[in-house]
Amino acid sequence: MTRPPVGTETQGADGPLIPVLAVVGVGLIGGSAALALRQAGQVGRVLGVGRNAQSLERARQLGLIDAAATPQEAAAQADVILLATPVGGLGAMLAQLRPHLQPHAVLTDAGSTKAEVVAAARAALDERIGQFVPGHPIAGAERSGPDAADAALYRRRTVILTPLPENAPAEVARVRALWQACGAHVIDMDADAHDQVLASVSHMPHLLAAAYMAQVASADNAAARLALAGTGFRDFTRIAAGSPEMWRDIFLSNRAALRAELAAVRAVLDQAERAIAEGDGAALEALLARAAQARRGWRKE
Amino acid sequence: MTRPPVGTETQGADGPLIPVLAVVGVGLIGGSAALALRQAGQVGRVLGVGRNAQSLERARQLGLIDAAATPQEAAAQADVILLATPVGGLGAMLAQLRPHLQPHAVLTDAGSTKAEVVAAARAALDERIGQFVPGHPIAGAERSGPDAADAALYRRRTVILTPLPENAPAEVARVRALWQACGAHVIDMDADAHDQVLASVSHMPHLLAAAYMAQVASADNAAARLALAGTGFRDFTRIAAGSPEMWRDIFLSNRAALRAELAAVRAVLDQAERAIAEGDGAALEALLARAAQARRGWRKE
Repeated sequence: MTRPPVGTETQGADGPLIPVLAVVGVGLIGGSAALALRQAGQVGRVLGVGRNAQSLERARQLGLIDAAATPQEAAAQADVILLATPVGGLGAMLAQLRPHLQPHAVLTDAGSTKAEVVAAARAALDERIGQFVPGHPIAGAERSGPDAADAALYRRRTVILTPLPENAPAEVARVRALWQACGAHVIDMDADAHDQVLASVSHMPHLLAAAYMAQVASADNAAARLALAGTGFRDFTRIAAGSPEMWRDIFLSNRAALRAELAAVRAVLDQAERAIAEGDGAALEALLARAAQARRGWRKE
Repeated sequence: MTRPPVGTETQGADGPLIPVLAVVGVGLIGGSAALALRQAGQVGRVLGVGRNAQSLERARQLGLIDAAATPQEAAAQADVILLATPVGGLGAMLAQLRPHLQPHAVLTDAGSTKAEVVAAARAALDERIGQFVPGHPIAGAERSGPDAADAALYRRRTVILTPLPENAPAEVARVRALWQACGAHVIDMDADAHDQVLASVSHMPHLLAAAYMAQVASADNAAARLALAGTGFRDFTRIAAGSPEMWRDIFLSNRAALRAELAAVRAVLDQAERAIAEGDGAALEALLARAAQARRGWRKE
């Protein structure tokens, strides 16, 4: 079977890729996608869904969305629905949307974990699970809310899709085209592999930085410590400022993979501490050299 | 007793603050100080001491030093000696310098730990210990060597001095004036308090980042992980690229304070893991919120 060029199967000669887009959660992630698609001329009308009326009104003023909508209204009108809410609430939102979905509509998410999201989506969407294409744009910032939206957020970033056996190729292609229109590079992965890799390179740094920062802040002489912290501390702890609610959901959602990684990190930390306790400079230097070499060899900056 | 304005006790009407400066270890730390003092017009002649002849020649070409010198030559000529070598080698170097020191010479160091440095200096300098004013400029970078030297490295940074009871006020003032001429803010602390605070805000981030980075690099699918690592990973691991030799010395030199801090960090990490394992979202969010609040409240960026 020959696959048509990306996007062409959903885009008429004159129309945009997505006639009606609904964004659930119009903050940094959802708002930036809406803005990028709008600037690329790839959306017609954009509906915003969210719990906070003020935040939706702000999103409208900023031009991220054309109008606020209820989940029912959004489901009834949207060709594509992007769910950009904390992963903990995804199942309940999908259950609200399901009875009203158009048969041709495609849903996708921006959740940082995938195995639990897929399980929640299966439970909520049931026989309509084929309409849901799980996704994860690897981009973010410490800022949040509609004012943080940035049309350039996804440019040259990676978006991972973890397609389901039930997804039709055309539906996956439509979601891929959505992110490509935002400037991202899109790859496919297995959901479990995604969760292990992200536990390692995203969730673990956040867990370590947050635990460390909480410990410094609880010290008797926290103020004296923080006054002398320098640029190393600044960069190491930057991610610890991220949304507690979002990261709580991510950690709980990905707990199995995260705990496996934590055990592996603790084992290396134990080695380092043993070398320090025993004054074993050679072992300690070997470990530090492994880390330094790996970090210097990482060419993404 | 009225103290004369900083620097005036050593500076004639026409002469610089330091007629002859010797820098032991002309890399990022020592080379940057030499360059800053030279640009400020505060040094006459600068001698460079080091194990690597090529590196000293490079420092001379770059204008960081006027000439290379042996430890004996440097001690015999210098008014001020700045030791900017890894802390592990400090005692041996001081012992080499001691028999040749001029009576009015002041020595200072740039070591990242202070209690062990003071002990090593006492053993090496003996009755001349009063000539040694321990110091620690809180500045650095992943780059190293004479080519990394930067006259602006210490501008608006903090330098901590941990003066000894044996130091004359004029000697402490001379070292304070040296760092102030480099653009730094200079404060005094007790050596043990210094070591605890630095274990917390400098050494611990490096230990955690390095252990984490070594673990990622040793994973079977390290390449796949590193390919998907983003900006959070980038900042969190930046310090892990630092010199393995330098950090080995720092960790061993400050092992008691570092291990005490590590036990405290592990306790918070245990709390976090327990909350994740038990699905205790409230406890987990509280911990993450404590970290986020502390990081957002840190106003040094």
